[in-house]
Amino acid sequence: MAAPHAVVLLSGGLDSATALAIAAGRGFVCHALSVDYGQRHVAELEAARQVAQAARAREHRIMRVDLAGIGGSALTDATLAVPETPTAGIPVTYVPARNTIMLSLALAWAEVLGAQDIFVGVNVLDSSGYPDFIAAFAALAGLATKAGVEGRPCRIHAPLIALTKGEIIREGTRLGVDYAQTVSCYQADEAGRACGRCDACRLRRAGFADAGLPDPTRYR
Amino acid sequence: MAAPHAVVLLSGGLDSATALAIAAGRGFVCHALSVDYGQRHVAELEAARQVAQAARAREHRIMRVDLAGIGGSALTDATLAVPETPTAGIPVTYVPARNTIMLSLALAWAEVLGAQDIFVGVNVLDSSGYPDFIAAFAALAGLATKAGVEGRPCRIHAPLIALTKGEIIREGTRLGVDYAQTVSCYQADEAGRACGRCDACRLRRAGFADAGLPDPTRYR
Repeated sequence: MAAPHAVVLLSGGLDSATALAIAAGRGFVCHALSVDYGQRHVAELEAARQVAQAARAREHRIMRVDLAGIGGSALTDATLAVPETPTAGIPVTYVPARNTIMLSLALAWAEVLGAQDIFVGVNVLDSSGYPDFIAAFAALAGLATKAGVEGRPCRIHAPLIALTKGEIIREGTRLGVDYAQTVSCYQADEAGRACGRCDACRLRRAGFADAGLPDPTRYR
Repeated sequence: MAAPHAVVLLSGGLDSATALAIAAGRGFVCHALSVDYGQRHVAELEAARQVAQAARAREHRIMRVDLAGIGGSALTDATLAVPETPTAGIPVTYVPARNTIMLSLALAWAEVLGAQDIFVGVNVLDSSGYPDFIAAFAALAGLATKAGVEGRPCRIHAPLIALTKGEIIREGTRLGVDYAQTVSCYQADEAGRACGRCDACRLRRAGFADAGLPDPTRYR
């Protein structure tokens, strides 16, 4: 029996690199998809390219969506500052409907490929609403595509959803992920080196400490 | 009280022009959104511009999404022919997950604008699954954005969903839509003139006949 194919959303960060390793570890032929929504941290896209190659993804595509034109996020709107202290509630680095848009693009590509599986590295620590969101997207996926209405809906896999950052890092390390390739920092420099101060850097550093593993992050 | 704002998906075709007129007629300040997913019929985008202006939309934005790169539709894949005879089932001109992607982009823009209403001109004659699809997207919308999780979910309006093509045309005509501006043809020329032979042209012509109104379509 031929190996099943999956579309894996790959941002270049730590979580999605782990989701890709898990999909590959489960035997899927992986098609990695990065979405360039006009974010500041283009270093992530280069990281995604390296991660996809290391995980032996069948291919890696970058789709460009012009979200920068509508503004509203510190990641896409150059007039908003990236915060360097923890903030309560939903952070300014939130991109409107980002996961919905990325999953929609993954769904479109999955249908073209004939793939019935999509992997996404979302985690409840980033939003407690993700389990409901993923369930709602899965329900939509069954109605949104030709394959879905013909009885072959896409499955939406969120294998990290209930893991702590430390557990994610331990699982990825076991599967051979080289986290030095990944970029989590919201304001990484062009070489992908992290600031060490933003919320994303703090969470990531705490994750390696929690996992009891050395932090391979390249700080500037 | 200030007028509410709405994002209206506007393809340049007959249905979405009518949906825009209905939104404006209900008192919404309309922000028209066209999505350029690499389709062949760029004449539609020029039609959308004219329709938005005629309906006094507050603004009209075109977001580009590079769906052509993944292929899979006669509308975005130049190697597939547009059919000129009616076909059974889901047509080859279907674009994978198109409505999901367009609604996702509308949702992102609505959140940035602080708009709580989205209008889309889908109709059950194009897919009997649209009512369930719209309900599923509305459920997702409540979980997908900051506004949604804070208790102000976007409402998804599909005012044409149960209308016949003739009823749509009568309603739009009553509201002042100039259908000569709209382009439905899958293979319109650069000036927006229709072929008169494809499925979309057939449906449109039958709609004007059903409405008992002259067909103002510009055929080549």
